[in-house]
Amino acid sequence: MDLDILINSLRNYDGITRKNFIRGATQILDETYNIGGRTALGFGDDASALDIGNDTLLLMAADGMWGRLIEGDPRWAGYCSVLVNVNDIAAMGGVPMGMTNVISVNKEDICNEIMLGIKEGVEKFGIPMVGGHIHPDTPYTALDVSITGIVGKDDVITSCGAKIGDSVIIGMDLDGRQHPKFPLNWDTTSHKTPELVQSQITVMNSIAKKHLLTAGKDISNPGILGTLGMLLEASGVGAIVELEKIPRNKKVSWDEWLKVYPGSGFVLTSKEENVKECIEMLQEVNITSQVAGIITEDKKLNLRHDNQEKVVFDFNHDIIMGIKEERS
Amino acid sequence: MDLDILINSLRNYDGITRKNFIRGATQILDETYNIGGRTALGFGDDASALDIGNDTLLLMAADGMWGRLIEGDPRWAGYCSVLVNVNDIAAMGGVPMGMTNVISVNKEDICNEIMLGIKEGVEKFGIPMVGGHIHPDTPYTALDVSITGIVGKDDVITSCGAKIGDSVIIGMDLDGRQHPKFPLNWDTTSHKTPELVQSQITVMNSIAKKHLLTAGKDISNPGILGTLGMLLEASGVGAIVELEKIPRNKKVSWDEWLKVYPGSGFVLTSKEENVKECIEMLQEVNITSQVAGIITEDKKLNLRHDNQEKVVFDFNHDIIMGIKEERS
Repeated sequence: MDLDILINSLRNYDGITRKNFIRGATQILDETYNIGGRTALGFGDDASALDIGNDTLLLMAADGMWGRLIEGDPRWAGYCSVLVNVNDIAAMGGVPMGMTNVISVNKEDICNEIMLGIKEGVEKFGIPMVGGHIHPDTPYTALDVSITGIVGKDDVITSCGAKIGDSVIIGMDLDGRQHPKFPLNWDTTSHKTPELVQSQITVMNSIAKKHLLTAGKDISNPGILGTLGMLLEASGVGAIVELEKIPRNKKVSWDEWLKVYPGSGFVLTSKEENVKECIEMLQEVNITSQVAGIITEDKKLNLRHDNQEKVVFDFNHDIIMGIKEERS
Repeated sequence: MDLDILINSLRNYDGITRKNFIRGATQILDETYNIGGRTALGFGDDASALDIGNDTLLLMAADGMWGRLIEGDPRWAGYCSVLVNVNDIAAMGGVPMGMTNVISVNKEDICNEIMLGIKEGVEKFGIPMVGGHIHPDTPYTALDVSITGIVGKDDVITSCGAKIGDSVIIGMDLDGRQHPKFPLNWDTTSHKTPELVQSQITVMNSIAKKHLLTAGKDISNPGILGTLGMLLEASGVGAIVELEKIPRNKKVSWDEWLKVYPGSGFVLTSKEENVKECIEMLQEVNITSQVAGIITEDKKLNLRHDNQEKVVFDFNHDIIMGIKEERS
C-alpha cells in the first residue's frame, strides 16, 4: 500500500474539507459565546455544554443531514439523524434526554419516510423526538435534528484535554455492513437489538463517570483520522498513529475504512494507567478497541505503516475546523 | 368593518394553514414520544418538556426560518431566529439556557449576514448560541435554530390547561414598527435596550413561578387568533373574544394586526382572581395587556364586534394543528 496515495485521498475527502467552513462562520460569535455566563464549552466540540447548577452540564448538539443522503434514502436519513445526535452526546460522556427536528419538504411521501426513519431511530436508541418544526412547502428537502443531554460537571469528556504522552485509543464496532446505497455509512446498528445499541451509548457515560479519558470524540463525517485530527486541533497537540493498529473489518479497504461514518466508533485519549479498563469496558459492548498511537508535542498527525511515517495533517499549516478549545 | 371579510382573510392566512401539516407528520411518532419515560410534554406546545429530576423540566424547541425571510433579509432572519426561540421558552414560563443552529448556505456573504444577525439577537436577548452545524454547499439557504431552557416542574405554562370560565388575556408590546420588508413582522425589539427586551422574557418566568396562568402561548406565525386557536385546540375548549379588547397599535389595520408576528406578544388564560396581578406584571415591562375574552365549553373560537358574533374556528370541524395535548 502506498501511504502517500492513502493520505492524499484522505486530505481531499469532502467529509474533512467541508469542516473548513466552520471557523469563518462561527468566529463572528466568539465574543458572545459566553453571554449569560453559563457556557462551559462552545463551538468546536461534539456538543456544547452549559452549566445549569447542581454540578450538572446541559449538553446541546445539532446536526443537519446531507442532502444526498435524504434524496437517496429518506428513511435511512431519518434513522441516521437520531444516530448521529445520540452519538454526539455519548462522545461527551453524557446521557441523551430528547431531540427536536426541523423538516423541510414538499412531498408528503418523503416526509412520511423521514418520520418513519426517525421513529426507527427513536425505538433503537430509546431517546424520544419530542418536538420540532415543519416547513411543508420548501423547494428542497432537508432534515435537521438537535439533541439535549446532561452530564456531571466533572465527568464531561471534551475534545480539548489530550495531553502529550496519552494513548490514542480507537474503538470501532466491526460487526456491520456498508450501506448498499452509501458505502461510507458503516451500519452497525440496524441488525442489532436496542439493548446492545443502547449499551454502546451508555458505556461512554460509565467511562466518563470513572474519569478514564483525557479526551474523546465520536467518529463522524471526517472519518477516523479526520475526527482524530479535530481532537488534536482542539487540544493543541499532535499524534503518531500506527495504521495496522486501527481496528478494522477486513472486508473494507483502508481507503474506505478511514472515511466511514460508523454506527458506533470513537477516538479517545487516555493516560496509560486507564487504558486497560477503558478498552475492557468498550470490548464488553462490542466496540473493538485498541491503542493505535500516542499523543505528541509536535502539532502533526503522523501515520506509520511498513516502516514508513508520513504526515497526514500538519496543524502548523493545515486547518480542519481550526478551533483550539478552552474550557471556561 | 365587515367581520366576515376579516375572518375569511384570517382563515386563509398561510401563517395558519401551514400548521395543518404538523399533525400528519407527527402522528407517526405518537407511540414513541414518551420513550425513555421522561417526556412531560411532547408535540403541540411551544416547547417540549422532559423531566430531568430535581423538580426540573428541560424545555426544548426548534424553529426553522421561512425561506422568504432569509432571502429578503438574511441578517433580520438571523436576528429573528434568536427572538422566536427565546419566546418559545418564555411562553412556557422557562429560563432560556442556550441555542444551537444548522445553517445551509452556498454564499459566504449570506452566511456572514445570517451570523451577524444571530449575534445581534444573542446580544439583545442575552442567550448564547453555543454550537451547531454548517452545510457549506447546499443549493438553497436555510436557517434552523433550536433552544433549550429549564423550568420548575410545577411552574411550567402549557397550552393545554385552559378551563371553562378562565379569562383570555392578550398581551402585546404596542411600541413597535412594521418591518419595512416584512409588514407582518411587528418589530418591538430592535430599538429597545437589552434590559427591557430581556425583562419581557423573564417576566414570564416570574408569572410562571407565581402560578398565575392556566395556559399560555407566544404569538407566532398564526397571529393572535391563530395562536389562541392552537391553545384552544390543545386545551379542548372554545372562547369568545371581543375584537376591540385586543390591544392594538392603531397605526396597523385589524386585518394586518391579527396576522403580525410580534417581537413580544402572548395569549394567556387565567383564573379571574389572578388576572389583575398578571396584567400588572406584564404592563410593567411594556406588554400592554387586557382581558379580551373568556374560555367556553363550546369548541369554537367566536369573535365579537359591533353587536355581531361570528365563528372564526369551529374545532368540531376545523383543524389548525389538531393536537389535543395531555400532560404525562
